[in-house]
Amino acid sequence: MLPKALNDVIEALGHLPGVGPRTAERYAYYLFRSNENISQNISNSLKNLHSGVKLCPKTFTLIDAEEEVSNFYSDPSREKETVLVVEQPLDIYAIEQTHQYHGTYHVLGGAISPIDGITPSDLHIKELISRVKEDSVKEVIIATNPSVEGESTALLLQKLLSENYPNLKITRLARGLPLGIDLSYADQITLSAALNNRTNL
Amino acid sequence: MLPKALNDVIEALGHLPGVGPRTAERYAYYLFRSNENISQNISNSLKNLHSGVKLCPKTFTLIDAEEEVSNFYSDPSREKETVLVVEQPLDIYAIEQTHQYHGTYHVLGGAISPIDGITPSDLHIKELISRVKEDSVKEVIIATNPSVEGESTALLLQKLLSENYPNLKITRLARGLPLGIDLSYADQITLSAALNNRTNL
Repeated sequence: MLPKALNDVIEALGHLPGVGPRTAERYAYYLFRSNENISQNISNSLKNLHSGVKLCPKTFTLIDAEEEVSNFYSDPSREKETVLVVEQPLDIYAIEQTHQYHGTYHVLGGAISPIDGITPSDLHIKELISRVKEDSVKEVIIATNPSVEGESTALLLQKLLSENYPNLKITRLARGLPLGIDLSYADQITLSAALNNRTNL
Repeated sequence: MLPKALNDVIEALGHLPGVGPRTAERYAYYLFRSNENISQNISNSLKNLHSGVKLCPKTFTLIDAEEEVSNFYSDPSREKETVLVVEQPLDIYAIEQTHQYHGTYHVLGGAISPIDGITPSDLHIKELISRVKEDSVKEVIIATNPSVEGESTALLLQKLLSENYPNLKITRLARGLPLGIDLSYADQITLSAALNNRTNL
């Protein structure tokens, strides 16, 4: 009953993650009511998405299609001896915003999750293990998410890396209280970690 | 730092209503990881949105660009003597799903809202008033939203219509308890309306 052109947009936008028919309708109607430029910008940018972006074959971060490897890897000022391992490419930009880290990165492409059918062989673990040797890596910092999946992935990485390289330093991001949390709202695990890893003032 | 093609998508999607940079990032990365068809479908459908959809000049519902007036108006089985007035085009599809209404529609294009700068002249009120005469309308059903803006719009319509057509029947959708609500959670206004408009069993 809706005009076909509008229905097509609703159906197409319904494929975005977490977007149901109602939200898709709202987006489509909003776009129709707004300046045509907004729709055209989305349309044009999406046309170039797959041809313009690829994964770096070394670090598996997102790079421009015409680049060979990621800047994070080719930049000589980045210390290749330290590799910070994350689940997803966008996690890197959170770390970069701290301006505290000058090593390189390795993106796993997810975390082990039997429910979603993600097994260790779906992740770029093999490539990480060969990279440690190739680049004479001294320290691997595991920065998977503090979730069940992230923790099991971290444990597996720790096992595989230490088996292959007994002298490799393997660390992970500290657990503790985040900024601005009220102590009474902190969960037990976080609070236990904050207590056990307390630092001198 | 992100690949340009990805950044372009994030920026373009950030113009959708209620979509901030984080959600736009999530959408863009999801699209990059998914089959290219999904992005291409969105891209193609948006290209045709503005050229494929227009407002019906009589009812202000959404119609295919090649149609002249809405089916809701041209269909001879719809009673032109009854006009149901809604705020937005998509409201019509909620009414249609009841299969209880066989008259025509009139879309105002919003509701009076001084805060958002929407005045009566921004709505298709003048066109409604001339339609009542042209189509010899006997009843106008006001179905604006049960919000402050919707209520003030309903009051204004009632005033203007009864001034112009003293014999016109003007009704509005009933207020009362919706399905499935727990009585103790119903608000006072709804409950008062349900009590005042009680029906015989």
